[in-house]
Amino acid sequence: MLKTRFTELMGIEHPIVQGGMQWVARAELAAGVSNGGGLGIMTALTQPTPDDLIKEVARCRTMTDKPFGVNLTILPSLRPIPHKEYAQAIIDSGVKIVETAGNNPGEFIDMFKAAGIKVVHKCTAVRHALTAQRLGVDAISIDGFECAGHVGEDDITNQILIPLAVDALDIPVIGSGGFGEGRQLAAALALGAEGVNMGTRFMATKEAPIHDKVKQRLVDAGERDSLLIMRALRNTSRVFRNEVAEEVARIEKEKGLNFKIEDVAHLVAGARGRHVYDDGDSEQGMWSAGMVAGVIHDVPSCKELIERIVSDAEAVIKGRLQSLVA
Amino acid sequence: MLKTRFTELMGIEHPIVQGGMQWVARAELAAGVSNGGGLGIMTALTQPTPDDLIKEVARCRTMTDKPFGVNLTILPSLRPIPHKEYAQAIIDSGVKIVETAGNNPGEFIDMFKAAGIKVVHKCTAVRHALTAQRLGVDAISIDGFECAGHVGEDDITNQILIPLAVDALDIPVIGSGGFGEGRQLAAALALGAEGVNMGTRFMATKEAPIHDKVKQRLVDAGERDSLLIMRALRNTSRVFRNEVAEEVARIEKEKGLNFKIEDVAHLVAGARGRHVYDDGDSEQGMWSAGMVAGVIHDVPSCKELIERIVSDAEAVIKGRLQSLVA
Repeated sequence: MLKTRFTELMGIEHPIVQGGMQWVARAELAAGVSNGGGLGIMTALTQPTPDDLIKEVARCRTMTDKPFGVNLTILPSLRPIPHKEYAQAIIDSGVKIVETAGNNPGEFIDMFKAAGIKVVHKCTAVRHALTAQRLGVDAISIDGFECAGHVGEDDITNQILIPLAVDALDIPVIGSGGFGEGRQLAAALALGAEGVNMGTRFMATKEAPIHDKVKQRLVDAGERDSLLIMRALRNTSRVFRNEVAEEVARIEKEKGLNFKIEDVAHLVAGARGRHVYDDGDSEQGMWSAGMVAGVIHDVPSCKELIERIVSDAEAVIKGRLQSLVA
Repeated sequence: MLKTRFTELMGIEHPIVQGGMQWVARAELAAGVSNGGGLGIMTALTQPTPDDLIKEVARCRTMTDKPFGVNLTILPSLRPIPHKEYAQAIIDSGVKIVETAGNNPGEFIDMFKAAGIKVVHKCTAVRHALTAQRLGVDAISIDGFECAGHVGEDDITNQILIPLAVDALDIPVIGSGGFGEGRQLAAALALGAEGVNMGTRFMATKEAPIHDKVKQRLVDAGERDSLLIMRALRNTSRVFRNEVAEEVARIEKEKGLNFKIEDVAHLVAGARGRHVYDDGDSEQGMWSAGMVAGVIHDVPSCKELIERIVSDAEAVIKGRLQSLVA
């Protein structure tokens, strides 16, 4: 048992959160994680409509009676997204924990707090975390350079970011990005975090509703199998390193400051995550995956994974670290 | 007291090494660190000739009777560097610990081992660490993305790199890059490291033989005040973020794949570290500094710094971490 301010706040057994991942974080995964004693999170925008989200929350509730949450990510998008309707659907669904991410979440934080919902805000910089704290969120999930997907533009790693965030904030901080095993959880706790958020690691679990071929790619991958794209647009994203991603990165380098999204539209269009995850075309499309791939060696159940990580972290704390100070 | 395989191997009190830094790692700093119970390291190539190195080692010996080492970095250079003569000078000086870094250290490792010298090899990738272990080095200092100076091209952070290195190697591993405080030392030990290497942090100490203005810049700086340059040349370096560095980075981005060192020669020539460190022109030149600047808040003596870090790490291990598992 690892009891922290975050486990107490959320009423969960273990200080491990499953991050909201577009197309991946559906009811099966969230329920698997919550049943394993962690905090499962579904992604609102994976559902085509707010009504579908309400149904998905209800479906998750048939699979677990433990706390779980919903992620609402606010990012600029080509197609207009009715964020406010999704936020209302989250409230109507009766969910009591929300993970916000992206830009200007203030309006939505107000809505959630008024509905008695606990809010974890995910961000990549201490200054954004301070803003979120001022807006009234209950905890911060701080995303280091290690993370998959939107990594921000600062490139600060968890080793630096976590202690700085902990010192700057009063509310609990959990570390996010690159986490997948017990030593890392112990390290995060040493740095002052009250738990960790894991995304990519939970993709390689039995419950993750994605193709087995993608899970196997993560098992086979090493720590060097992710790369950053879209930096030139200040919309940097960490994706799995395959031929498509390498080609996007190459074009971006070649164009330098003149790079435009149109330069890679032929590679990106129709090739984003959903098709990869559903069809297993992990070599054909662009999909988010973090540096943590280097420490992913198997595809356990969520419960097995969570219990192993917590048990390994406890062993590090009670065994190795104690023996060093003895 | 934190006793590890590394402290035992090197015969030092605390698991903290001061990394070899060109122009900075002179006798004063190495002696200060070793007198503080850490492992001080002088940089061979900071000395203009191999003979000067022998004199500098002798000078260091007048300041401390504790173990200290010499760094030998093998990198391509415009002016030819007599690495072999420096290596022989290290042996002749009677120093018993060497830190190697850079490319193809095999020949030098053989020389040092034949002379009964303990060798720590610093590198940025697990595959390079495995090669060094096969070549017979005694320990690895693995350099994460956080580090100042030559950061490599893989961009793997310590959170991932340390556990992977520890799992892959039999010899002791110390973590390097971004370290500057006690929670981070505790975290490194949790990840499996047997200690940490600190470079930039030791620049902001009383003993560091550099201008006070540079030390103050590090105290004032935040975690975002470093940036990477020379990536296009696959010779990536993390330097302090000032106007010169920003301009180099801007030109590099603008040129993209066509970037050549000649494009920034007017900015780099005569503006590298030595003048910055000696004259305090921290805004005028290019100088190495890591992400750790964000956690540097004062200019203590080496001994004060080392004892504070170890004491804070012990407090984390015996206090916070124990209470979480209780």
